[in-house]
Amino acid sequence: MPCHEIEFGMFPLEEVEEDEEAGKHINGNQNTDPTRFSDGALRLRNPHISEMEQDILYHLALGSGSHDLQEMFSDVRFVCMGGTPKRMEQFAYYIMDEIGYKLPAGTTLLDISYQSYRYSMYKVGPVLCFSHGMGIPSVGILLHEVIKLMYHAKCRDPIFFRLGTCGGIGIEGGNLVISESAVDGLLQPYLELPVLGQMQRRPAVLDRQLAHDLKNLRRDDDPFTVTVGKTMCTYDFYEGQGRLDGAFCDYTEEDKLAFLRKIHTENVVNMEMESLCFAALCHHAGVRGAVVCVTLLNRLHGDQVSTPKEVLNKWQEYPQMLVARYIKKAMGLPVTVPQRSHPQVVKCPRQAQMVRQQSASFE
Amino acid sequence: MPCHEIEFGMFPLEEVEEDEEAGKHINGNQNTDPTRFSDGALRLRNPHISEMEQDILYHLALGSGSHDLQEMFSDVRFVCMGGTPKRMEQFAYYIMDEIGYKLPAGTTLLDISYQSYRYSMYKVGPVLCFSHGMGIPSVGILLHEVIKLMYHAKCRDPIFFRLGTCGGIGIEGGNLVISESAVDGLLQPYLELPVLGQMQRRPAVLDRQLAHDLKNLRRDDDPFTVTVGKTMCTYDFYEGQGRLDGAFCDYTEEDKLAFLRKIHTENVVNMEMESLCFAALCHHAGVRGAVVCVTLLNRLHGDQVSTPKEVLNKWQEYPQMLVARYIKKAMGLPVTVPQRSHPQVVKCPRQAQMVRQQSASFE
Repeated sequence: MPCHEIEFGMFPLEEVEEDEEAGKHINGNQNTDPTRFSDGALRLRNPHISEMEQDILYHLALGSGSHDLQEMFSDVRFVCMGGTPKRMEQFAYYIMDEIGYKLPAGTTLLDISYQSYRYSMYKVGPVLCFSHGMGIPSVGILLHEVIKLMYHAKCRDPIFFRLGTCGGIGIEGGNLVISESAVDGLLQPYLELPVLGQMQRRPAVLDRQLAHDLKNLRRDDDPFTVTVGKTMCTYDFYEGQGRLDGAFCDYTEEDKLAFLRKIHTENVVNMEMESLCFAALCHHAGVRGAVVCVTLLNRLHGDQVSTPKEVLNKWQEYPQMLVARYIKKAMGLPVTVPQRSHPQVVKCPRQAQMVRQQSASFE
Repeated sequence: MPCHEIEFGMFPLEEVEEDEEAGKHINGNQNTDPTRFSDGALRLRNPHISEMEQDILYHLALGSGSHDLQEMFSDVRFVCMGGTPKRMEQFAYYIMDEIGYKLPAGTTLLDISYQSYRYSMYKVGPVLCFSHGMGIPSVGILLHEVIKLMYHAKCRDPIFFRLGTCGGIGIEGGNLVISESAVDGLLQPYLELPVLGQMQRRPAVLDRQLAHDLKNLRRDDDPFTVTVGKTMCTYDFYEGQGRLDGAFCDYTEEDKLAFLRKIHTENVVNMEMESLCFAALCHHAGVRGAVVCVTLLNRLHGDQVSTPKEVLNKWQEYPQMLVARYIKKAMGLPVTVPQRSHPQVVKCPRQAQMVRQQSASFE
């Protein structure tokens, strides 16, 4: 029971010039688009799925034969994903307050995929929240299944967000980076994947307008800066990101710094482990996608994250704040204030606290 | 408080011919070994770690400055890892019964890494159990930190096992495959990783003697076969493994089958998503490692897993059974019977049940 009708395309922001291929995905009314039906629902670039009796979304513990996916998910407009189940559960409750989504009395959110033990999945009206684990294979499996879920549910023009953490290159900890595109560890701007013994390459392109709109939602009193730039996505956290503190290291600190400075001159502003696949799969599916990450440290100054846990937890809310503003704006809600300041339907907090205290002491 | 002293090298099995490089890791008394101190403790191939004031094992929520890692982990001899936290928690309790490891009354196992929200970690005497998530990057981060943990804790000659699931190539569901080596999706027998902008290659070699010893622990009344063969390790579950049921597919069923038949003729008997990294990092660290996976289906017959959950759960116990036998044998315990048939210290199960019933009905 979403509280608000959703309106789209209402961003009164200056437009970014789009390349031709990206532009064709935005309007759903071109029947020649291999990724869209005329009503904006996703068309799959796989002729086999529609011929299958049922499609099991194995890692989500859902299936097209076992579940009425259209009934459950057709209202989804925003798909938000991040690393850990705990963080995404926390985001689900945060976005619930931000958009004022009202649960029926006596209910709470359920991890829809709890039986899969792979990913977590929470639905808050038009917002679907997933944990994607660590690395390209893990986020890749999730994206395949979420794209198929969008198709089965006939969701129209969904927007995908990755909310993550990263190492900054020349950016201090606690600031935001929105990826304009992703490159691999060799600075190649595509996702390479062997398919049937042949190397397949898919461009890791992200939606420029979406990145631009997100950046413009920064407010002057925010405690973070927002940088739009290139993201290096690696297959390893230690040697793959030039760290000195893995189990193995064959290079010196000078080698490391020379490498980081070199990629910095190529406009790489951060490093993480999922954006290449996220960008490539969203782009191939014709889905608008954005990667918003908070820097945990400036890699030009070190490898290990020594910032206190409480500060890190605070920082990890920054991507959520920016994405929540985008969702609220797209829904026609006021961007600056949450729609509900208290998670329960409480008229008078003081009296509610008294009720709780008395209830607790009554044996 | 382990119940048993551990003896090693007591396998009365026929020896497999070892190549020279692998052989040098088995005896810890060669001071020229870059991966071992003379007492068998791991030597790191990274000169920076010993110079660091403290080493934070970020994804395990442990640190060399904050924790007495030697006190906590020096008795570890076996490291067992698998995909999901739930499965590895279940394995931890299973191996506890199998080796008869006794917890103090009123205690239970704790997920040591619960504060990381990344991996789970259980310790049962000499056995350390981890979940590694899905894919090479996820298992790679874990291996870097576990290898460093073994180093800080001065563990001697630890053996690493991956217990997983896989697709069989020409092997029906519910049977075991022990990897003799791993190849990538292009049949290359090494792990490729860009490091400081250069492609690094590490051979994905596994311990042949260990694979052989494990295979010989199959019993005639086991409900599964055991095959030793080559494992193809991929970066994707759908297109990367030639499935027809991903969000994208550009090839036909005939293309897929031709590919699977081709790799089958190259002695590839199963496919999964972690073995390449597991083999390469264990080998580089001089750690004996084995990958034992149960097949969920024969990929020559299909893509989707339609076997009932209960059967799948049963199958996923098979790798655990084989690895438990190895551990028991190495510990000098009888291989065929569990050391404790009941997880609590119960003298008379019938009377214990009566106590539980009376306790439950007493208000």
